[in-house]
Amino acid sequence: MESTTSVQPFELSVEACRARRGTKWNKYPSDVLPAWVADMDFSVAEPIQEAIERLVNLGDYGYGARLGEVSLETAFAERMERRFGWSPDPEQVQPVSELIQALFSVLLAFSEPGDGVVMQTPIYPPFLVALAQTERRLVDNPLADEGSRFVLDAADLRRKVDDRTRILVVCNPHNPSGRVLEREELLALGELAVERDMVIVADEIHADLLYSGRRHVVMATLSPEIASRTITITSATKGFNIPGLRCALMHFGSPELRERFRRTIPDRLLGQVNVIGIDATVAAWRHGQPWLDRVMTRLSANRERVAEFVAAELPGVRHYQPEATYLAWLDCGALDLPSSPAEFFLEQARVGLNDGADFGPASQSCVRLNFGTSGAILEEVLERMAAAVRASRAGGNGTRQSSSRPPIRS
Amino acid sequence: MESTTSVQPFELSVEACRARRGTKWNKYPSDVLPAWVADMDFSVAEPIQEAIERLVNLGDYGYGARLGEVSLETAFAERMERRFGWSPDPEQVQPVSELIQALFSVLLAFSEPGDGVVMQTPIYPPFLVALAQTERRLVDNPLADEGSRFVLDAADLRRKVDDRTRILVVCNPHNPSGRVLEREELLALGELAVERDMVIVADEIHADLLYSGRRHVVMATLSPEIASRTITITSATKGFNIPGLRCALMHFGSPELRERFRRTIPDRLLGQVNVIGIDATVAAWRHGQPWLDRVMTRLSANRERVAEFVAAELPGVRHYQPEATYLAWLDCGALDLPSSPAEFFLEQARVGLNDGADFGPASQSCVRLNFGTSGAILEEVLERMAAAVRASRAGGNGTRQSSSRPPIRS
Repeated sequence: MESTTSVQPFELSVEACRARRGTKWNKYPSDVLPAWVADMDFSVAEPIQEAIERLVNLGDYGYGARLGEVSLETAFAERMERRFGWSPDPEQVQPVSELIQALFSVLLAFSEPGDGVVMQTPIYPPFLVALAQTERRLVDNPLADEGSRFVLDAADLRRKVDDRTRILVVCNPHNPSGRVLEREELLALGELAVERDMVIVADEIHADLLYSGRRHVVMATLSPEIASRTITITSATKGFNIPGLRCALMHFGSPELRERFRRTIPDRLLGQVNVIGIDATVAAWRHGQPWLDRVMTRLSANRERVAEFVAAELPGVRHYQPEATYLAWLDCGALDLPSSPAEFFLEQARVGLNDGADFGPASQSCVRLNFGTSGAILEEVLERMAAAVRASRAGGNGTRQSSSRPPIRS
Repeated sequence: MESTTSVQPFELSVEACRARRGTKWNKYPSDVLPAWVADMDFSVAEPIQEAIERLVNLGDYGYGARLGEVSLETAFAERMERRFGWSPDPEQVQPVSELIQALFSVLLAFSEPGDGVVMQTPIYPPFLVALAQTERRLVDNPLADEGSRFVLDAADLRRKVDDRTRILVVCNPHNPSGRVLEREELLALGELAVERDMVIVADEIHADLLYSGRRHVVMATLSPEIASRTITITSATKGFNIPGLRCALMHFGSPELRERFRRTIPDRLLGQVNVIGIDATVAAWRHGQPWLDRVMTRLSANRERVAEFVAAELPGVRHYQPEATYLAWLDCGALDLPSSPAEFFLEQARVGLNDGADFGPASQSCVRLNFGTSGAILEEVLERMAAAVRASRAGGNGTRQSSSRPPIRS
């Protein structure tokens, strides 16, 4: 079955993907199609590549300066203003290498071992690892299933927050559900944070990846009281597909908050960002939007295709279309598979997905599927999965189905 | 006056330096020749450039893997074995972005505010900033002037160490003096650290840059007792001139030491190194030595030239030839200049040097000169300095001398 849009120049073939040396295409044997870690199988925006080539052609690897140029902090502030009507203060930006580093730093700065930290499960697994490694306590506020989408359960959270709950982590757009939280949902969280004196960590890294009709509400725009306790963490790496370049930032909603943070975490403890990551990020934020608009067209078609295919070919799999991100969250509980769904699809479909069990206590029956890829590769991923389920239902002995599939169109 | 070796292909012209966007050539107005921050005016080794171009040509900016390739940790261990007869454990390596981040992390992990930290002043200024920002106390063990070189003063240190002195920082080769500490000097430090239960931080980033006849002794090779309390911090960025790529590492001399460290500093708090920095560093350590050998020939000639010039044209300036590094430490106290020497040479010679005052309490009369540049640029730097001193002695009114200099040979 053909994808619903034509092939775009940024879509990489399987061969081009395999020529790369990253995690996504090298974790599994070569007969496995990877649809797990949040890398897209797309070449980067032309302005990013040009910025990197400019630097590499000069061999310009010395201590950075970029005097008289638009800084990382300014490029960030200008993009937030332009895209979301938010005016962050460039002076309150702390560059870091990536968001998990930022989360660790906030946990250490604003809580003690045993203190509670709110998260909405299912959630990006490194968040849970960060709690475990720092001996913080998960105050789990699971997303509630409304039947057609997941929603925030503010009443549940209000019951669970105690006096030792110090930090509220909000992942919005939410990974892995793809929910774009609405103003009222965010306000319920923010007001509770003010009431119970919690620091807010707003992970907004997926805000670049919203589908038509959705609007990203920046946590720090809700009210001055909420803003002053909010640390926004974000990066161009997700939307613009440059995670290996390691450039992200934290924005503190008030100088007081930053000073409290610095008492535990001096700036230089967080290291410094490499010049290529900075140049690439500035180029992405300033000049990458036309590329991202084209990418969103591909992702939007893929999102529709996943929903359509799951409904038609994977009956019993529960799936709500994401409102943002290129991640599909699939509950396979009703399939009654002989092993965990991630293991089943890896072994029987030769498709590498993220295991739902890593995302929280109630997600063992789920997988996360990354559809940030070409229409052709996505089609092959989906067909392999459906064939494996059909074979399993027919009492198949687990023979791989991929050999009967046509070659991947690339 | 001509330099003593011919121009090498890696030596950049002034125009090529100015085309770059780094700190070194952009801090000062364009009529100033910069000889300050420890960047060399050289293009990088071919294997480094090739490694970066390989990655950039593929646009390979995803989450890194490098499965089946030589890792950063292994490349480090192999180089240490090959160059210094040291066999560090790749399992005990923690990648970081740069050495000051590493130093901050050790200060926070192994001491409390008010605790003592030993350093040999004059010392690389960010070390002193790290103490101030973390409210640690400098236990100053200044290098002693032997008349022809600086030496470690172990008796002074023994008198100064108290029960709250927790950490001994050893910068070897020493920045800014250029001393390559000898086994006996290091042993005196190491044994005192064992005796007084201090953690040792061995900054060995300049070990790539030793002049003929010198031998680098790795602190962690002195004895098992010393090794087990030693954190070695190093990077390819200094020897191979890639500081903007931000890739460094810490090596813990025992698993126990690393576990103690992790109780305060979880690995992910330190962030992750970008893929370009890793690829460049692996290429440098595995394949960069022929380039470095050629660079050392240029640096060696420059080192001789600085000594010769200072003796002949800057009488009264005290200077001992460095045994390693491309840094010359010049005590200008006897010149009796009208302002601090760094300010004088900036204003009157239009040469940017590091101000000795930043290196410790007794270095106000000193400057640090970076001679990691072409013979032509070095010659111009030195001649400008001498002319400014001559003009000052002649009762000159501070008119710039550079206009009477010939154009820079590049």
